[in-house]
Amino acid sequence: MTKILLYQQISDDLCELIHQGVYLPGEKLPSLRALSVKRKVSIATIQRAVEELEIIGLIEARPKSGYYVCFKTRTEVAIEQPIISMKPKSVKIHELASQIFHQCGAPDVINMGTSYPSSDFMPTPALQKIANQVIKHHMSDIVEVQFSAGHAVLRDVLAKRMNESGCQVSSNDIIVTNGCLEALSVCLRAVAKPGATIALESPGFVGSLQLIESLGYKALEIPCHSVTGMSLEALELALEQWKISAVLVVPSYSNPLGSCMPEANRKKLVALLSTHDIPLIEDDLLGDLSFDGSRLKPCKAFDKKGMVLYCSSVSKTIASGLRVGWIAPGAYYKEVSYFKTFTNISAPQFSQIVVAQFYNSGKYERHLRQLTAKIAKQVYLIQSYIRQYFPEGTLVSSPQGGCILWVVLPKGIDGHHLYLKAIKMGIGVIPGQLSSATNKFDHCIRINCACDPKVDIQRSIKTLADISHEILGK
Amino acid sequence: MTKILLYQQISDDLCELIHQGVYLPGEKLPSLRALSVKRKVSIATIQRAVEELEIIGLIEARPKSGYYVCFKTRTEVAIEQPIISMKPKSVKIHELASQIFHQCGAPDVINMGTSYPSSDFMPTPALQKIANQVIKHHMSDIVEVQFSAGHAVLRDVLAKRMNESGCQVSSNDIIVTNGCLEALSVCLRAVAKPGATIALESPGFVGSLQLIESLGYKALEIPCHSVTGMSLEALELALEQWKISAVLVVPSYSNPLGSCMPEANRKKLVALLSTHDIPLIEDDLLGDLSFDGSRLKPCKAFDKKGMVLYCSSVSKTIASGLRVGWIAPGAYYKEVSYFKTFTNISAPQFSQIVVAQFYNSGKYERHLRQLTAKIAKQVYLIQSYIRQYFPEGTLVSSPQGGCILWVVLPKGIDGHHLYLKAIKMGIGVIPGQLSSATNKFDHCIRINCACDPKVDIQRSIKTLADISHEILGK
Repeated sequence: MTKILLYQQISDDLCELIHQGVYLPGEKLPSLRALSVKRKVSIATIQRAVEELEIIGLIEARPKSGYYVCFKTRTEVAIEQPIISMKPKSVKIHELASQIFHQCGAPDVINMGTSYPSSDFMPTPALQKIANQVIKHHMSDIVEVQFSAGHAVLRDVLAKRMNESGCQVSSNDIIVTNGCLEALSVCLRAVAKPGATIALESPGFVGSLQLIESLGYKALEIPCHSVTGMSLEALELALEQWKISAVLVVPSYSNPLGSCMPEANRKKLVALLSTHDIPLIEDDLLGDLSFDGSRLKPCKAFDKKGMVLYCSSVSKTIASGLRVGWIAPGAYYKEVSYFKTFTNISAPQFSQIVVAQFYNSGKYERHLRQLTAKIAKQVYLIQSYIRQYFPEGTLVSSPQGGCILWVVLPKGIDGHHLYLKAIKMGIGVIPGQLSSATNKFDHCIRINCACDPKVDIQRSIKTLADISHEILGK
Repeated sequence: MTKILLYQQISDDLCELIHQGVYLPGEKLPSLRALSVKRKVSIATIQRAVEELEIIGLIEARPKSGYYVCFKTRTEVAIEQPIISMKPKSVKIHELASQIFHQCGAPDVINMGTSYPSSDFMPTPALQKIANQVIKHHMSDIVEVQFSAGHAVLRDVLAKRMNESGCQVSSNDIIVTNGCLEALSVCLRAVAKPGATIALESPGFVGSLQLIESLGYKALEIPCHSVTGMSLEALELALEQWKISAVLVVPSYSNPLGSCMPEANRKKLVALLSTHDIPLIEDDLLGDLSFDGSRLKPCKAFDKKGMVLYCSSVSKTIASGLRVGWIAPGAYYKEVSYFKTFTNISAPQFSQIVVAQFYNSGKYERHLRQLTAKIAKQVYLIQSYIRQYFPEGTLVSSPQGGCILWVVLPKGIDGHHLYLKAIKMGIGVIPGQLSSATNKFDHCIRINCACDPKVDIQRSIKTLADISHEILGK
């Protein structure tokens, strides 16, 4: 269903082959002529495809020799965080967030705001085939509500996958939800009463901040390192100072920073909270989306006491519209099940069966490789353009997975100001104002790189950069 | 997908013809022989079918003449309610309710507990055809999440239908939810903070009571007349005594009493709450399920100030498993939209498109006539068997729609006691303990008559009656 240009398709394919290790670091790619003959396209098209890979630093041209796969495709750059005083705060971002998301979603806007991958990245034809079979064979299941924690076959495969990533859970430990936001909401309600303090990364996920706002909690923002994630030292300090009812963490590819907490830190985090008897709500929504195919163990894998409430969904990997998420709530099963039931009884059967069958079809792994290769390419491209076009002093994150870039603008540029000018030009991004209950990140913007691959990404980023220059008066 | 016996099918058909007015009150049915020739079945089968219609009081035998359609098919019997003092109370029924629903849903149990119509009543083949087309033509819509109040075509047809029943709403006034329980939950959260007092019918819907419990509200139970519904006099008295944040009402076929509030009372209720500036949450889940095809105007139709939050779903009419409900929240649109978004963003597209197309196919009205005729038949049958077999002094409600019967047991029989003995015999009913935060209805049970038509209903009711006699020591 994607109308992707030929050179983009070839560039995607080469990108995937490199990620699969078909072409190894240091190895020479076939010549442009050879590729042109093999793919039956003009040399100019091949040239264009290869240039894209060069821009994102995946290959390099060596004079009079050809193109070689780079040894280290990217370097991680740490973004230093301002020192802040941590204090529980009421969140009041919903009004602004609602307005911004509404504008970003308008039909004529290039939406780099909302952090959902474009449907062009989704395995629509495969899902369509499966859906046809589901309608044919499971219609009776679809029409009748189930008073259960979720479809048994889905819970089985989710448990199997979680075990493969190191979590010891069975299908009876899993509760299916309508997406990850519902999972987070139900977990929060299960462990904390209104007025309670929830600790989370800073900058934090706008959806989590809005949840905290809608449920009447206070947010305690813990500084987050752009590479290693939530600062455990800062969290320890906060635990001494404040009564915290739960910690909400995104260990893999946090939104917006893109940080990925090392396994040692995950283990330490679980142990730390375990000694304090504080539940950890783990948002592993993006855990599968690592650019190099690696998959770190979730915090849940280190959970001995059942204090980790693991949440995820298929919204970023299979289909956001199916609204299938899940929780492995550990020792909080009963409370979570209670609040899930009194949210909406259970998730629709159709979506659950389709997702279960897609996982079980064996097509998921290949789809995931293609998906992450495509997203990684767009992340690298946008990163390169930002470095190329934005004013001096701009910093951009270097995530190893996920689909989000975090841009720290030079002094003098306000994220919301940039947003307002950009949306008038038909480009939607999220200003840093939505990533915190404080004004610490007012000079930042968040960019969703998994946007529609058919848009002119280079031109869009250049427009954002031009606005930034204009604001600086250069 | 139903395996229904031949005589039951014929009985269903005759029942529908009578409800459609093909055979009018006082009119003679064709002879058994004529029916036998026309339907190409034995006279014994026709005899059995006709006997069923006689039991439920739809036709009567006149000696040496034949069978005639009765003039008044049923009489409404009012059940007197004990006088009570109204006082806001915390609800604590969830533990018991959860245990009972779990046991009622076990595979070997004849489930007359949970108040969902059996899937045998649902238009599965028609939905399957539509679902096939939806998969074929709308797969792109299905995979991508929509940040909206619901699918536009669905909201259009829901608004159209609501207008036909007298409510002046447009599609922009409607928010689609995952079922009616989510609708009620979101409305409650939009109008009342934890600790607030919610007034509702007594006896009340177990799901609403559990919602009140899960959201930390107090329930103020207003006596309900078995024919005319919530007592407005009692409500007026309560309004003088207590600070009420919202009134939750089921005007059409309340659960469990089956009462139907007359239009004059609906109008008066809306006016009363309007002068007090108190929002009315109207649960119209069963509004379409009137046995004689009539449809009273919802309270929403009398709402001038936007104080009525109208909730409904397709769970009892089209398919409970699709989980499609909706809200017309009036003046509370913004608050309701906010809490819906932070429950789970939006409802899945697949279910919404299927429901929209089913309504728009023109098949809904005919399906509804067949559905209500089938349910009415089972309601009448069960009512007749209760009158025939249960101990003297048993009272049973006479609803004009819906699928629930409320049984008041004679002194000496406790509903939960009866439940415990019945579930051991493989029959699930709901004891009155779940219909109130008080113990006013401990001597009652609730029976879902829209249970699987393939079970031996007569035998099940007789078993319940035998247990009742046994408890009384007769």
